[in-house]
Amino acid sequence: MMEWINEGNILVVGLGLMGGSYAKVLSRMGYHVVAIDRNEDSIAYAIEEGIIENGATYPDEKLIASADCIIFALYPKIFVEWIKENQKFFKPGIFITDVTGVKGSVVYDVQSVLRDDVEFIAAHPMAGREVYGVRNSDEHMFHDANYIVVPTEKNSKEAIEWCKTLGHILGTRRVSVLSPEEHDAMIAYVSQLTHCIAVSLMTCNDNPHLVDYTGDSFRDLTRIARINEDMWSELFFMNKELLVKEMGEFINELSTIKELIENEDEETLKEKMRLSTSRRALFNKPEKR
Amino acid sequence: MMEWINEGNILVVGLGLMGGSYAKVLSRMGYHVVAIDRNEDSIAYAIEEGIIENGATYPDEKLIASADCIIFALYPKIFVEWIKENQKFFKPGIFITDVTGVKGSVVYDVQSVLRDDVEFIAAHPMAGREVYGVRNSDEHMFHDANYIVVPTEKNSKEAIEWCKTLGHILGTRRVSVLSPEEHDAMIAYVSQLTHCIAVSLMTCNDNPHLVDYTGDSFRDLTRIARINEDMWSELFFMNKELLVKEMGEFINELSTIKELIENEDEETLKEKMRLSTSRRALFNKPEKR
Repeated sequence: MMEWINEGNILVVGLGLMGGSYAKVLSRMGYHVVAIDRNEDSIAYAIEEGIIENGATYPDEKLIASADCIIFALYPKIFVEWIKENQKFFKPGIFITDVTGVKGSVVYDVQSVLRDDVEFIAAHPMAGREVYGVRNSDEHMFHDANYIVVPTEKNSKEAIEWCKTLGHILGTRRVSVLSPEEHDAMIAYVSQLTHCIAVSLMTCNDNPHLVDYTGDSFRDLTRIARINEDMWSELFFMNKELLVKEMGEFINELSTIKELIENEDEETLKEKMRLSTSRRALFNKPEKR
Repeated sequence: MMEWINEGNILVVGLGLMGGSYAKVLSRMGYHVVAIDRNEDSIAYAIEEGIIENGATYPDEKLIASADCIIFALYPKIFVEWIKENQKFFKPGIFITDVTGVKGSVVYDVQSVLRDDVEFIAAHPMAGREVYGVRNSDEHMFHDANYIVVPTEKNSKEAIEWCKTLGHILGTRRVSVLSPEEHDAMIAYVSQLTHCIAVSLMTCNDNPHLVDYTGDSFRDLTRIARINEDMWSELFFMNKELLVKEMGEFINELSTIKELIENEDEETLKEKMRLSTSRRALFNKPEKR
Protein backbone atom coordinates (compact mmCIF):
# COMPACT_ATOMS: atom_id res chain seq x y z
CA MET A 1 0.00 0.00 0.00
CA MET A 2 2.88 2.34 0.75
CA GLU A 3 4.23 2.15 -2.79
CA TRP A 4 2.31 5.28 -3.66
CA ILE A 5 4.44 7.51 -1.42
CA ASN A 6 7.39 6.95 0.86
CA GLU A 7 6.91 5.92 4.44
CA GLY A 8 6.32 9.54 5.30
CA ASN A 9 3.55 11.89 6.16
CA ILE A 10 0.68 13.15 4.07
CA LEU A 11 -0.02 16.71 5.18
CA VAL A 12 -3.56 18.05 4.78
CA VAL A 13 -3.72 21.84 4.93
CA GLY A 14 -7.27 22.95 5.75
CA LEU A 15 -9.12 20.35 7.77
CA GLY A 16 -12.72 21.16 6.87
CA LEU A 17 -15.29 18.90 5.31
CA MET A 18 -13.15 18.07 2.29
CA GLY A 19 -9.74 17.97 3.94
CA GLY A 20 -11.22 15.96 6.78
CA SER A 21 -12.74 13.45 4.38
CA TYR A 22 -9.39 13.02 2.59
CA ALA A 23 -7.70 12.52 5.97
CA LYS A 24 -10.31 9.99 7.07
CA VAL A 25 -9.96 7.81 3.98
CA LEU A 26 -6.17 7.95 3.96
CA SER A 27 -5.83 7.22 7.69
CA ARG A 28 -8.22 4.27 7.47
CA MET A 29 -6.01 2.89 4.72
CA GLY A 30 -2.91 3.05 6.87
CA TYR A 31 -1.26 6.22 5.62
CA HIS A 32 0.30 8.62 8.09
CA VAL A 33 -1.79 11.76 7.94
CA VAL A 34 -1.05 15.06 9.66
CA ALA A 35 -2.91 18.34 9.30
CA ILE A 36 -2.76 22.09 9.73
CA ASP A 37 -5.91 24.08 10.43
CA ARG A 38 -6.44 27.36 12.27
CA ASN A 39 -9.35 25.86 14.17
CA GLU A 40 -8.13 24.28 17.38
CA ASP A 41 -11.24 22.17 17.82
CA SER A 42 -10.85 20.66 14.36
CA ILE A 43 -7.31 19.52 15.07
CA ALA A 44 -8.14 18.22 18.57
CA TYR A 45 -11.21 16.37 17.30
CA ALA A 46 -9.32 14.82 14.36
CA ILE A 47 -6.51 13.57 16.59
CA GLU A 48 -8.98 12.16 19.11
CA GLU A 49 -10.92 10.37 16.38
CA GLY A 50 -7.79 8.97 14.75
CA ILE A 51 -8.42 10.96 11.58
CA ILE A 52 -4.91 12.42 11.81
CA GLU A 53 -1.83 11.41 13.79
CA ASN A 54 -0.69 14.90 14.56
CA GLY A 55 -1.58 18.49 13.76
CA ALA A 56 -0.95 22.17 14.27
CA THR A 57 -3.06 25.32 14.29
CA TYR A 58 -0.35 27.37 12.58
CA PRO A 59 2.16 26.67 9.76
CA ASP A 60 4.45 24.56 11.93
CA GLU A 61 7.85 24.34 10.23
CA LYS A 62 8.63 20.84 11.49
CA LEU A 63 5.24 19.45 10.53
CA ILE A 64 5.44 20.95 7.04
CA ALA A 65 9.01 19.72 6.58
CA SER A 66 7.92 16.21 7.57
CA ALA A 67 5.47 15.95 4.67
CA ASP A 68 6.18 13.76 1.63
CA CYS A 69 3.19 15.24 -0.11
CA ILE A 70 0.69 17.98 0.72
CA ILE A 71 -3.03 18.19 -0.02
CA PHE A 72 -4.44 21.71 0.07
CA ALA A 73 -8.11 21.99 0.99
CA LEU A 74 -8.32 25.76 1.38
CA TYR A 75 -10.35 28.50 -0.30
CA PRO A 76 -8.56 29.56 -3.50
CA LYS A 77 -7.15 32.93 -2.42
CA ILE A 78 -5.84 31.75 0.94
CA PHE A 79 -4.29 28.79 -0.87
CA VAL A 80 -2.00 30.92 -3.04
CA GLU A 81 -1.01 33.11 -0.08
CA TRP A 82 -0.24 30.08 2.07
CA ILE A 83 2.11 28.68 -0.58
CA LYS A 84 3.99 31.96 -0.90
CA GLU A 85 4.51 32.27 2.83
CA ASN A 86 5.31 28.70 3.76
CA GLN A 87 6.87 26.94 0.77
CA LYS A 88 10.29 27.61 2.23
CA PHE A 89 9.55 24.76 4.67
CA PHE A 90 8.64 22.19 1.97
CA LYS A 91 10.79 19.07 1.65
CA PRO A 92 12.54 19.18 -1.75
CA GLY A 93 11.02 17.06 -4.53
CA ILE A 94 7.52 16.61 -3.10
CA PHE A 95 4.25 16.72 -5.01
CA ILE A 96 1.49 19.00 -3.78
CA THR A 97 -2.13 18.88 -4.90
CA ASP A 98 -5.44 20.57 -4.06
CA VAL A 99 -9.22 20.23 -4.13
CA THR A 100 -10.11 23.68 -5.45
CA GLY A 101 -13.32 24.05 -7.45
CA VAL A 102 -11.91 26.46 -10.04
CA LYS A 103 -8.61 25.93 -11.79
CA GLY A 104 -7.64 28.51 -14.42
CA SER A 105 -7.08 31.35 -12.00
CA VAL A 106 -5.46 29.15 -9.36
CA VAL A 107 -3.22 26.60 -11.04
CA TYR A 108 -1.11 29.01 -13.08
CA ASP A 109 -0.75 31.37 -10.09
CA VAL A 110 0.45 28.62 -7.80
CA GLN A 111 2.76 27.09 -10.38
CA SER A 112 4.31 30.47 -11.15
CA VAL A 113 5.19 31.23 -7.53
CA LEU A 114 6.18 27.68 -6.57
CA ARG A 115 9.77 26.58 -5.91
CA ASP A 116 11.32 24.77 -8.86
CA ASP A 117 12.02 21.61 -6.86
CA VAL A 118 8.37 21.07 -5.89
CA GLU A 119 5.56 20.17 -8.30
CA PHE A 120 1.93 21.27 -7.99
CA ILE A 121 -0.55 18.97 -9.74
CA ALA A 122 -4.13 20.23 -9.44
CA ALA A 123 -7.16 18.05 -8.81
CA HIS A 124 -10.87 18.51 -8.19
CA PRO A 125 -12.93 15.86 -6.43
CA MET A 126 -16.48 16.65 -7.51
CA ALA A 127 -18.08 15.88 -4.18
CA GLY A 128 -19.61 17.93 -1.43
CA ARG A 129 -22.22 18.20 1.25
CA GLU A 130 -24.45 20.98 2.51
CA VAL A 131 -22.66 20.77 5.84
CA TYR A 132 -19.21 21.93 6.93
CA GLY A 133 -16.24 21.06 9.05
CA VAL A 134 -14.20 18.01 9.92
CA ARG A 135 -16.94 16.77 12.24
CA ASN A 136 -19.11 16.22 9.15
CA SER A 137 -16.35 14.66 7.08
CA ASP A 138 -17.24 11.36 5.50
CA GLU A 139 -14.96 8.67 4.15
CA HIS A 140 -17.73 7.55 1.78
CA MET A 141 -18.09 11.00 0.22
CA PHE A 142 -16.07 10.07 -2.84
CA HIS A 143 -17.72 6.81 -3.82
CA ASP A 144 -20.06 8.39 -6.32
CA ALA A 145 -17.75 11.26 -7.26
CA ASN A 146 -15.82 12.22 -10.36
CA TYR A 147 -12.20 13.04 -9.64
CA ILE A 148 -10.56 15.30 -12.15
CA VAL A 149 -6.81 15.75 -12.51
CA VAL A 150 -6.03 19.15 -14.04
CA PRO A 151 -2.45 19.31 -15.34
CA THR A 152 -0.73 22.12 -17.21
CA GLU A 153 2.27 21.97 -19.53
CA LYS A 154 4.48 22.33 -16.47
CA ASN A 155 3.40 18.99 -15.03
CA SER A 156 5.35 15.76 -15.37
CA LYS A 157 3.82 12.42 -16.33
CA GLU A 158 4.94 11.12 -12.97
CA ALA A 159 2.99 13.78 -11.05
CA ILE A 160 -0.11 13.22 -13.20
CA GLU A 161 -0.01 9.48 -12.50
CA TRP A 162 0.60 10.12 -8.80
CA CYS A 163 -2.44 12.40 -8.67
CA LYS A 164 -4.64 9.92 -10.57
CA THR A 165 -3.60 7.24 -8.09
CA LEU A 166 -4.72 9.49 -5.23
CA GLY A 167 -8.14 9.64 -6.91
CA HIS A 168 -8.28 5.85 -6.99
CA ILE A 169 -7.12 5.57 -3.39
CA LEU A 170 -9.95 7.89 -2.34
CA GLY A 171 -12.35 5.48 -4.00
CA THR A 172 -13.78 7.93 -6.52
CA ARG A 173 -16.00 6.45 -9.21
CA ARG A 174 -14.19 7.91 -12.17
CA VAL A 175 -10.77 9.50 -12.57
CA SER A 176 -10.23 11.71 -15.61
CA VAL A 177 -7.91 14.40 -16.91
CA LEU A 178 -8.91 17.85 -18.17
CA SER A 179 -7.00 21.04 -18.92
CA PRO A 180 -7.72 24.00 -16.59
CA GLU A 181 -9.77 25.62 -19.36
CA GLU A 182 -11.83 22.50 -20.05
CA HIS A 183 -12.36 22.01 -16.33
CA ASP A 184 -13.59 25.53 -15.72
CA ALA A 185 -15.98 25.48 -18.70
CA MET A 186 -17.42 22.17 -17.52
CA ILE A 187 -17.73 23.28 -13.90
CA ALA A 188 -19.42 26.55 -14.91
CA TYR A 189 -22.21 24.55 -16.52
CA VAL A 190 -22.47 21.42 -14.41
CA SER A 191 -21.92 22.87 -10.94
CA GLN A 192 -21.86 26.66 -10.73
CA LEU A 193 -24.88 27.29 -12.96
CA THR A 194 -26.89 24.72 -11.02
CA HIS A 195 -26.03 26.43 -7.73
CA CYS A 196 -27.13 29.80 -9.15
CA ILE A 197 -30.40 28.22 -10.29
CA ALA A 198 -31.06 26.69 -6.90
CA VAL A 199 -30.42 30.00 -5.15
CA SER A 200 -32.69 31.86 -7.60
CA LEU A 201 -35.46 29.33 -7.04
CA MET A 202 -35.34 30.02 -3.32
CA THR A 203 -35.15 33.80 -3.61
CA CYS A 204 -37.50 34.54 -6.55
CA ASN A 205 -40.70 33.71 -4.71
CA ASP A 206 -41.42 35.35 -1.40
CA ASN A 207 -44.03 32.90 -0.24
CA PRO A 208 -42.66 30.90 2.69
CA HIS A 209 -45.78 28.78 3.21
CA LEU A 210 -45.19 27.11 -0.16
CA VAL A 211 -42.66 24.94 1.63
CA ASP A 212 -45.66 23.02 2.95
CA TYR A 213 -46.47 21.75 -0.54
CA THR A 214 -43.10 21.02 -2.04
CA GLY A 215 -42.81 17.78 -3.93
CA ASP A 216 -39.67 15.79 -4.51
CA SER A 217 -38.72 17.75 -7.62
CA PHE A 218 -38.56 21.08 -5.84
CA ARG A 219 -36.69 19.54 -2.94
CA ASP A 220 -34.14 18.01 -5.33
CA LEU A 221 -33.62 21.21 -7.29
CA THR A 222 -33.01 23.25 -4.17
CA ARG A 223 -30.92 20.87 -2.07
CA ILE A 224 -27.83 22.85 -3.07
CA ALA A 225 -29.56 26.14 -2.23
CA ARG A 226 -28.00 25.78 1.22
CA ILE A 227 -24.79 27.35 0.15
CA ASN A 228 -21.59 28.49 1.83
CA GLU A 229 -21.64 32.12 0.70
CA ASP A 230 -17.95 32.80 1.34
CA MET A 231 -16.69 29.84 -0.65
CA TRP A 232 -19.17 30.01 -3.52
CA SER A 233 -18.98 33.76 -4.10
CA GLU A 234 -15.19 33.39 -4.33
CA LEU A 235 -15.52 30.46 -6.76
CA PHE A 236 -18.11 32.33 -8.87
CA PHE A 237 -15.97 35.46 -9.19
CA MET A 238 -12.88 33.42 -10.07
CA ASN A 239 -14.76 31.76 -12.93
CA LYS A 240 -16.85 34.80 -13.78
CA GLU A 241 -16.48 34.88 -17.54
CA LEU A 242 -17.42 31.24 -18.15
CA LEU A 243 -20.18 31.21 -15.55
CA VAL A 244 -21.82 34.35 -16.90
CA LYS A 245 -21.72 32.82 -20.38
CA GLU A 246 -23.43 29.62 -19.19
CA MET A 247 -26.01 31.61 -17.23
CA GLY A 248 -26.77 33.66 -20.32
CA GLU A 249 -27.26 30.56 -22.46
CA PHE A 250 -29.49 28.95 -19.85
CA ILE A 251 -31.59 32.10 -19.46
CA ASN A 252 -32.01 32.25 -23.24
CA GLU A 253 -33.11 28.65 -23.40
CA LEU A 254 -35.58 29.01 -20.54
CA SER A 255 -36.92 32.17 -22.19
CA THR A 256 -37.42 30.19 -25.40
CA ILE A 257 -39.37 27.53 -23.52
CA LYS A 258 -41.42 30.28 -21.87
CA GLU A 259 -42.30 31.61 -25.32
CA LEU A 260 -43.21 28.13 -26.59
CA ILE A 261 -45.63 27.83 -23.67
CA GLU A 262 -47.03 31.33 -24.20
CA ASN A 263 -47.62 30.55 -27.89
CA GLU A 264 -48.81 27.01 -27.16
CA ASP A 265 -46.29 25.76 -29.74
CA GLU A 266 -46.94 22.16 -28.80
CA GLU A 267 -44.74 20.47 -31.38
CA THR A 268 -41.58 22.49 -30.68
CA LEU A 269 -42.10 22.22 -26.92
CA LYS A 270 -42.46 18.45 -27.18
CA GLU A 271 -39.29 18.30 -29.27
CA LYS A 272 -37.42 20.08 -26.45
CA MET A 273 -38.86 17.63 -23.96
CA ARG A 274 -37.88 14.63 -26.06
CA LEU A 275 -34.32 15.96 -26.40
CA SER A 276 -34.21 16.57 -22.67
CA THR A 277 -35.51 13.08 -21.92
CA SER A 278 -33.05 11.35 -24.22
CA ARG A 279 -30.06 13.30 -22.87
CA ARG A 280 -31.03 12.78 -19.26
CA ALA A 281 -31.54 9.07 -19.87
CA LEU A 282 -27.77 8.74 -20.39
CA PHE A 283 -27.16 9.62 -16.75
CA ASN A 284 -29.05 6.64 -15.45
CA LYS A 285 -26.57 4.10 -16.71
CA PRO A 286 -23.80 4.20 -14.13
CA GLU A 287 -21.92 1.37 -15.84
CA LYS A 288 -21.38 3.60 -18.88
CA ARG A 289 -20.24 6.64 -16.97
CA MET B 1 -62.03 -0.40 7.21
CA MET B 2 -65.06 -0.35 4.99
CA GLU B 3 -66.60 2.58 6.85
CA TRP B 4 -65.10 4.89 4.29
CA ILE B 5 -67.26 3.59 1.44
CA ASN B 6 -69.97 1.00 1.15
CA GLU B 7 -69.13 -2.62 0.50
CA GLY B 8 -68.86 -1.80 -3.16
CA ASN B 9 -66.28 -1.22 -5.83
CA ILE B 10 -63.74 1.52 -6.23
CA LEU B 11 -63.37 2.13 -9.95
CA VAL B 12 -60.05 3.48 -11.20
CA VAL B 13 -60.28 5.00 -14.68
CA GLY B 14 -56.83 5.15 -16.27
CA LEU B 15 -54.54 2.44 -14.96
CA GLY B 16 -51.14 4.03 -15.52
CA LEU B 17 -48.44 4.76 -12.98
CA MET B 18 -50.71 6.86 -10.77
CA GLY B 19 -53.95 4.92 -11.19
CA GLY B 20 -52.04 1.69 -10.73
CA SER B 21 -50.45 2.95 -7.51
CA TYR B 22 -53.86 3.97 -6.13
CA ALA B 23 -55.21 0.54 -7.07
CA LYS B 24 -52.27 -1.24 -5.44
CA VAL B 25 -52.61 0.56 -2.12
CA LEU B 26 -56.38 0.19 -1.98
CA SER B 27 -56.35 -3.51 -2.95
CA ARG B 28 -53.67 -4.31 -0.36
CA MET B 29 -55.93 -2.70 2.24
CA GLY B 30 -58.85 -4.90 1.36
CA TYR B 31 -60.93 -2.62 -0.83
CA HIS B 32 -62.58 -3.99 -3.96
CA VAL B 33 -60.85 -2.25 -6.84
CA VAL B 34 -61.80 -2.47 -10.51
CA ALA B 35 -60.35 -0.51 -13.42
CA ILE B 36 -60.89 0.69 -16.94
CA ASP B 37 -57.93 1.30 -19.23
CA ARG B 38 -57.63 1.14 -23.03
CA ASN B 39 -54.44 -0.87 -22.70
CA GLU B 40 -55.23 -4.58 -22.63
CA ASP B 41 -51.87 -5.51 -21.16
CA SER B 42 -52.34 -3.11 -18.24
CA ILE B 43 -55.69 -4.66 -17.30
CA ALA B 44 -54.45 -8.24 -17.72
CA TYR B 45 -51.29 -7.55 -15.72
CA ALA B 46 -53.21 -5.82 -12.93
CA ILE B 47 -55.71 -8.67 -12.59
CA GLU B 48 -52.92 -11.25 -12.59
CA GLU B 49 -50.99 -9.34 -9.91
CA GLY B 50 -54.06 -8.85 -7.73
CA ILE B 51 -53.91 -5.08 -8.18
CA ILE B 52 -57.53 -5.08 -9.35
CA GLU B 53 -60.32 -7.64 -9.09
CA ASN B 54 -61.77 -6.97 -12.49
CA GLY B 55 -61.33 -4.62 -15.41
CA ALA B 56 -62.33 -3.55 -18.89
CA THR B 57 -60.60 -1.95 -21.87
CA TYR B 58 -63.67 0.15 -22.77
CA PRO B 59 -66.27 2.08 -20.72
CA ASP B 60 -68.13 -1.03 -19.64
CA GLU B 61 -71.62 0.00 -18.49
CA LYS B 62 -71.91 -2.73 -15.85
CA LEU B 63 -68.46 -2.08 -14.39
CA ILE B 64 -69.10 1.67 -14.20
CA ALA B 65 -72.53 1.13 -12.65
CA SER B 66 -70.99 -1.15 -10.02
CA ALA B 67 -68.76 1.62 -8.68
CA ASP B 68 -69.44 3.33 -5.34
CA CYS B 69 -66.77 5.86 -6.09
CA ILE B 70 -64.54 6.59 -9.06
CA ILE B 71 -60.94 7.79 -9.18
CA PHE B 72 -59.93 9.38 -12.47
CA ALA B 73 -56.25 9.12 -13.35
CA LEU B 74 -56.43 10.41 -16.93
CA TYR B 75 -54.86 13.33 -18.78
CA PRO B 76 -56.98 16.45 -18.19
CA LYS B 77 -58.68 16.79 -21.60
CA ILE B 78 -59.59 13.11 -21.93
CA PHE B 79 -60.92 13.26 -18.39
CA VAL B 80 -63.59 15.86 -19.19
CA GLU B 81 -64.58 14.04 -22.39
CA TRP B 82 -64.85 10.72 -20.58
CA ILE B 83 -67.22 12.22 -17.99
CA LYS B 84 -69.46 13.69 -20.68
CA GLU B 85 -69.75 10.42 -22.54
CA ASN B 86 -70.07 7.96 -19.70
CA GLN B 87 -71.66 9.69 -16.71
CA LYS B 88 -75.01 8.27 -17.74
CA PHE B 89 -73.78 4.94 -16.31
CA PHE B 90 -72.81 6.36 -12.87
CA LYS B 91 -74.61 5.06 -9.79
CA PRO B 92 -76.60 7.96 -8.26
CA GLY B 93 -75.09 9.72 -5.27
CA ILE B 94 -71.46 8.66 -5.73
CA PHE B 95 -68.37 10.79 -5.18
CA ILE B 96 -65.80 10.97 -7.94
CA THR B 97 -62.27 12.34 -7.60
CA ASP B 98 -59.12 12.70 -9.71
CA VAL B 99 -55.33 13.07 -9.61
CA THR B 100 -54.94 15.86 -12.18
CA GLY B 101 -51.95 18.17 -11.85
CA VAL B 102 -53.82 21.38 -12.80
CA LYS B 103 -57.14 22.32 -11.32
CA GLY B 104 -58.59 25.67 -12.41
CA SER B 105 -59.29 24.65 -15.98
CA VAL B 106 -60.46 21.14 -15.05
CA VAL B 107 -62.52 21.29 -11.87
CA TYR B 108 -65.01 23.92 -13.02
CA ASP B 109 -65.42 22.21 -16.41
CA VAL B 110 -66.13 18.83 -14.87
CA GLN B 111 -68.45 20.23 -12.22
CA SER B 112 -70.42 22.18 -14.81
CA VAL B 113 -71.11 19.16 -17.03
CA LEU B 114 -71.61 16.66 -14.20
CA ARG B 115 -74.97 15.19 -13.27
CA ASP B 116 -76.57 16.88 -10.24
CA ASP B 117 -76.77 13.64 -8.26
CA VAL B 118 -73.01 12.95 -8.43
CA GLU B 119 -70.29 15.05 -6.75
CA PHE B 120 -66.79 15.68 -8.10
CA ILE B 121 -64.22 16.55 -5.45
CA ALA B 122 -60.79 17.23 -6.95
CA ALA B 123 -57.50 16.08 -5.47
CA HIS B 124 -53.82 16.16 -6.41
CA PRO B 125 -51.37 13.67 -4.95
CA MET B 126 -48.00 15.40 -5.41
CA ALA B 127 -46.08 12.27 -6.29
CA GLY B 128 -44.56 10.88 -9.44
CA ARG B 129 -41.83 8.90 -11.05
CA GLU B 130 -39.81 9.20 -14.25
CA VAL B 131 -41.33 5.91 -15.40
CA TYR B 132 -44.76 5.05 -16.68
CA GLY B 133 -47.48 2.45 -16.62
CA VAL B 134 -49.09 0.12 -14.13
CA ARG B 135 -46.05 -2.16 -14.23
CA ASN B 136 -44.08 0.61 -12.52
CA SER B 137 -46.80 1.47 -10.04
CA ASP B 138 -45.67 1.55 -6.44
CA GLU B 139 -47.73 1.36 -3.29
CA HIS B 140 -45.05 3.32 -1.44
CA MET B 141 -45.19 6.24 -3.87
CA PHE B 142 -47.35 8.35 -1.55
CA HIS B 143 -45.40 8.03 1.68
CA ASP B 144 -43.45 11.23 1.21
CA ALA B 145 -46.12 13.03 -0.80
CA ASN B 146 -48.37 15.98 -0.17
CA TYR B 147 -52.00 15.26 -0.97
CA ILE B 148 -54.08 18.29 -1.78
CA VAL B 149 -57.87 18.36 -1.77
CA VAL B 150 -59.14 21.11 -4.08
CA PRO B 151 -62.80 21.91 -3.43
CA THR B 152 -64.96 24.60 -5.01
CA GLU B 153 -68.10 26.27 -3.64
CA LYS B 154 -70.10 23.42 -5.17
CA ASN B 155 -68.55 20.81 -2.89
CA SER B 156 -70.15 19.50 0.28
CA LYS B 157 -68.35 19.12 3.60
CA GLU B 158 -69.04 15.42 3.36
CA ALA B 159 -67.24 15.07 0.01
CA ILE B 160 -64.27 17.10 1.24
CA GLU B 161 -63.93 14.86 4.29
CA TRP B 162 -64.30 11.75 2.13
CA CYS B 163 -61.53 12.96 -0.15
CA LYS B 164 -59.22 13.86 2.75
CA THR B 165 -59.76 10.36 4.12
CA LEU B 166 -58.68 8.91 0.77
CA GLY B 167 -55.43 10.88 1.14
CA HIS B 168 -54.89 9.35 4.58
CA ILE B 169 -55.74 5.85 3.33
CA LEU B 170 -53.12 6.25 0.60
CA GLY B 171 -50.60 6.98 3.33
CA THR B 172 -49.64 10.46 2.15
CA ARG B 173 -47.48 12.49 4.50
CA ARG B 174 -49.65 15.56 4.60
CA VAL B 175 -53.25 16.20 3.59
CA SER B 176 -54.25 19.80 2.98
CA VAL B 177 -56.95 21.84 1.29
CA LEU B 178 -56.44 24.59 -1.30
CA SER B 179 -58.74 26.42 -3.70
CA PRO B 180 -58.19 25.67 -7.42
CA GLU B 181 -56.56 29.08 -7.82
CA GLU B 182 -54.22 28.61 -4.85
CA HIS B 183 -53.36 25.14 -6.06
CA ASP B 184 -52.48 26.25 -9.56
CA ALA B 185 -50.32 29.16 -8.38
CA MET B 186 -48.44 26.85 -6.05
CA ILE B 187 -47.99 24.14 -8.65
CA ALA B 188 -46.76 26.65 -11.25
CA TYR B 189 -43.90 27.54 -8.95
CA VAL B 190 -43.13 24.35 -7.09
CA SER B 191 -43.57 21.80 -9.87
CA GLN B 192 -44.06 23.23 -13.35
CA LEU B 193 -41.29 25.85 -13.15
CA THR B 194 -38.87 23.23 -11.84
CA HIS B 195 -39.66 20.94 -14.75
CA CYS B 196 -39.07 23.78 -17.23
CA ILE B 197 -35.73 24.50 -15.54
CA ALA B 198 -34.67 20.87 -15.70
CA VAL B 199 -35.55 20.65 -19.39
CA SER B 200 -33.69 23.90 -20.15
CA LEU B 201 -30.62 22.64 -18.33
CA MET B 202 -30.56 19.58 -20.56
CA THR B 203 -31.19 21.44 -23.81
CA CYS B 204 -29.16 24.66 -23.35
CA ASN B 205 -25.76 23.02 -23.65
CA ASP B 206 -24.98 20.86 -26.63
CA ASN B 207 -22.04 19.05 -25.13
CA PRO B 208 -23.02 15.44 -24.51
CA HIS B 209 -19.64 14.40 -23.09
CA LEU B 210 -20.25 16.64 -20.07
CA VAL B 211 -22.37 13.85 -18.70
CA ASP B 212 -19.10 12.17 -17.78
CA TYR B 213 -18.39 14.83 -15.20
CA THR B 214 -21.75 15.49 -13.64
CA GLY B 215 -21.78 15.78 -9.89
CA ASP B 216 -24.68 15.08 -7.60
CA SER B 217 -26.08 18.57 -7.92
CA PHE B 218 -26.51 18.39 -11.68
CA ARG B 219 -27.98 14.91 -11.41
CA ASP B 220 -30.50 16.10 -8.82
CA LEU B 221 -31.52 19.16 -10.78
CA THR B 222 -32.14 17.19 -13.94
CA ARG B 223 -33.78 14.04 -12.57
CA ILE B 224 -37.15 15.42 -13.69
CA ALA B 225 -35.75 16.29 -17.13
CA ARG B 226 -37.00 12.86 -18.20
CA ILE B 227 -40.43 14.12 -18.93
CA ASN B 228 -43.61 12.74 -20.46
CA GLU B 229 -44.04 15.30 -23.21
CA ASP B 230 -47.73 14.60 -23.85
CA MET B 231 -48.78 14.96 -20.25
CA TRP B 232 -46.56 17.90 -19.32
CA SER B 233 -47.22 20.01 -22.41
CA GLU B 234 -50.93 19.62 -21.72
CA LEU B 235 -50.47 20.57 -18.06
CA PHE B 236 -48.27 23.56 -18.96
CA PHE B 237 -50.76 24.95 -21.48
CA MET B 238 -53.67 24.51 -19.07
CA ASN B 239 -51.82 26.58 -16.46
CA LYS B 240 -50.15 28.89 -18.95
CA GLU B 241 -50.81 32.24 -17.35
CA LEU B 242 -49.53 31.34 -13.89
CA LEU B 243 -46.60 29.31 -15.19
CA VAL B 244 -45.41 32.06 -17.53
CA LYS B 245 -45.60 34.51 -14.62
CA GLU B 246 -43.45 32.27 -12.41
CA MET B 247 -40.97 31.65 -15.24
CA GLY B 248 -40.68 35.40 -15.77
CA GLU B 249 -40.00 36.04 -12.08
CA PHE B 250 -37.42 33.27 -11.94
CA ILE B 251 -35.66 34.52 -15.09
CA ASN B 252 -35.55 38.03 -13.60
CA GLU B 253 -34.05 36.74 -10.37
CA LEU B 254 -31.44 34.62 -12.13
CA SER B 255 -30.58 37.61 -14.35
CA THR B 256 -30.09 39.70 -11.21
CA ILE B 257 -27.73 37.09 -9.78
CA LYS B 258 -25.90 37.03 -13.11
CA GLU B 259 -25.40 40.79 -12.86
CA LEU B 260 -24.19 40.54 -9.26
CA ILE B 261 -21.56 38.07 -10.45
CA GLU B 262 -20.61 40.21 -13.46
CA ASN B 263 -20.20 43.24 -11.18
CA GLU B 264 -18.56 41.20 -8.40
CA ASP B 265 -21.07 42.70 -5.99
CA GLU B 266 -19.96 40.40 -3.22
CA GLU B 267 -22.13 41.72 -0.40
CA THR B 268 -25.44 41.59 -2.30
CA LEU B 269 -24.63 38.17 -3.73
CA LYS B 270 -23.86 36.83 -0.26
CA GLU B 271 -27.14 38.29 1.01
CA LYS B 272 -28.99 36.30 -1.67
CA MET B 273 -27.10 33.19 -0.68
CA ARG B 274 -27.88 33.68 2.99
CA LEU B 275 -31.57 34.16 2.20
CA SER B 276 -31.51 31.05 0.03
CA THR B 277 -29.76 29.04 2.75
CA SER B 278 -32.18 30.10 5.48
CA ARG B 279 -35.26 29.39 3.36
CA ARG B 280 -33.98 26.03 2.18
CA ALA B 281 -33.11 25.03 5.74
CA LEU B 282 -36.84 24.95 6.55
CA PHE B 283 -37.29 21.98 4.21
CA ASN B 284 -35.01 19.76 6.18
CA LYS B 285 -37.27 19.58 9.20
CA PRO B 286 -39.91 17.05 8.19
CA GLU B 287 -41.46 17.13 11.68
CA LYS B 288 -42.45 20.76 11.14
CA ARG B 289 -43.98 20.30 7.71
